[in-house]
Amino acid sequence: MRYGYIGSMKVKPGHRTEVVAVLVAGADGLRNAGCDLYVVTESATDEDTVWVSEVWESKEHHDASLQLPEAKAAIGKVMPLLTGEFTRQETHVVGGLGI
Amino acid sequence: MRYGYIGSMKVKPGHRTEVVAVLVAGADGLRNAGCDLYVVTESATDEDTVWVSEVWESKEHHDASLQLPEAKAAIGKVMPLLTGEFTRQETHVVGGLGI
Repeated sequence: MRYGYIGSMKVKPGHRTEVVAVLVAGADGLRNAGCDLYVVTESATDEDTVWVSEVWESKEHHDASLQLPEAKAAIGKVMPLLTGEFTRQETHVVGGLGI
Repeated sequence: MRYGYIGSMKVKPGHRTEVVAVLVAGADGLRNAGCDLYVVTESATDEDTVWVSEVWESKEHHDASLQLPEAKAAIGKVMPLLTGEFTRQETHVVGGLGI
């Protein structure tokens, strides 16, 4: 089964738009790294939280992508804007619609 | 922006495969109800938890879909297999890859 990841990150107040923009801008580049889905969303109930839902060919593809120069650059831009509060779920992707 | 939903449900021990099968089987039928993405996944760290990540044209489309006969039938099949423990996140979908 493919590898799924659902994560949230807490953003320092007033910086969510910047963080989301960086994540969305980098998404296309993940296609060649084995990413099938990378959905960037803003919590509708907490204005400082960002959620990402991802599907990868494998956990190895996901983990390896974090070493890409573009990924490191994006992480470097985003980290200073985050509080350090994260949640993460690793999953096995069974199926559904649009995936 | 489109409406995003990330939810988890706890399944009674030994019933996850059944629950996931019902959810996946019903996914295709959601396309005409305004669903763009419905990803059914199994937690990799808790064998009794299912995660779904969804994207809809709007919250109204999502909410209306719960009244569909097929949705009610699926919910009727799944509910007895669940413990009643849910988490839910409502989000605004900004963008990304594959969506």
